[in-house]
Amino acid sequence: MFDMRRIKHCRVCGAPTQYRVPDDDNRERAICTVCGEIHYENPLNVVGTVPVWGEQVLLCRRNIEPRYGLWTLPAGFMELGETIAEGAVRETVEEAGARIELQELFTLLNVVRVGQVHLFHRARLLDTRFDPGPETIEAQLFHEQEIPWDQLAFRTVRETLQCYFADRKRGRFELHVSDIG
Amino acid sequence: MFDMRRIKHCRVCGAPTQYRVPDDDNRERAICTVCGEIHYENPLNVVGTVPVWGEQVLLCRRNIEPRYGLWTLPAGFMELGETIAEGAVRETVEEAGARIELQELFTLLNVVRVGQVHLFHRARLLDTRFDPGPETIEAQLFHEQEIPWDQLAFRTVRETLQCYFADRKRGRFELHVSDIG
Repeated sequence: MFDMRRIKHCRVCGAPTQYRVPDDDNRERAICTVCGEIHYENPLNVVGTVPVWGEQVLLCRRNIEPRYGLWTLPAGFMELGETIAEGAVRETVEEAGARIELQELFTLLNVVRVGQVHLFHRARLLDTRFDPGPETIEAQLFHEQEIPWDQLAFRTVRETLQCYFADRKRGRFELHVSDIG
Repeated sequence: MFDMRRIKHCRVCGAPTQYRVPDDDNRERAICTVCGEIHYENPLNVVGTVPVWGEQVLLCRRNIEPRYGLWTLPAGFMELGETIAEGAVRETVEEAGARIELQELFTLLNVVRVGQVHLFHRARLLDTRFDPGPETIEAQLFHEQEIPWDQLAFRTVRETLQCYFADRKRGRFELHVSDIG
């Protein structure tokens, strides 16, 4: 669950905040009790890729919490100063050290429970030399029947991989939008 | 431009922050000088709709800054606790008091300069009784040739309307992804 009421102090002046509904608003926000600054909390985007080499998909084994040791598609929080596509490429480089040609947006998954939207692009690997960063234990290519389904780190990764193999089977890729409970 | 370095104090303890690169990271974050809390700043999603009644599109004239008095599609910041689709419906109700049937995601527009991603769904108006909220001066239906192109509030609204009329002309709607400079 996303942290509600986690803003205890004002980012502008440091004074304590109080959660109440501002004028002309309809939900509680952290409002500074001294300077009146209103602090909004909103969902964040997680951006990543499905990197493909022929029949195989690249997964990364996580070297960090949460889900240490489990397998994921390369993905991470979108940063200021970049587009969704740029963030997806960056995360693929940072986590897998992989060089890719980015393709279409493939899944858009609302994860309301944690206040996130996960967006995965399909991507074509340009070669099979990987150089995983510090967040990754190892990066490895998997055929469909080799995917470690019971050792995937996140439900959005499972959903995206399921959509990928289903679309590949029917020979047509399209955008999948869904909500992860 | 999004506000860089706008976090002066820690949200947990109120002490001053300092911008520096945390261990195992590669960009500057506001870090509390006392408790060490790291404060991340990330892009936000703006969600809205293209509400359509026959040949006409519904626009709202803004009763708030920025862009007071200019015309917009109903849209606003996605909130915690909702999906993109739910946020789009909520904003359409709040700003136009319109009842809609939400359709497909239509535009996904990166606005890097302000740290935002704008996502518009197409929507079918269920009737033509509008009840604009406090953020809207008036809500009005426009035929394509009546659109006030020189009085639109945002470039993402212009882009979305242009895509809408172009797709309608060719008889096929698809997702448009682009970057607004």
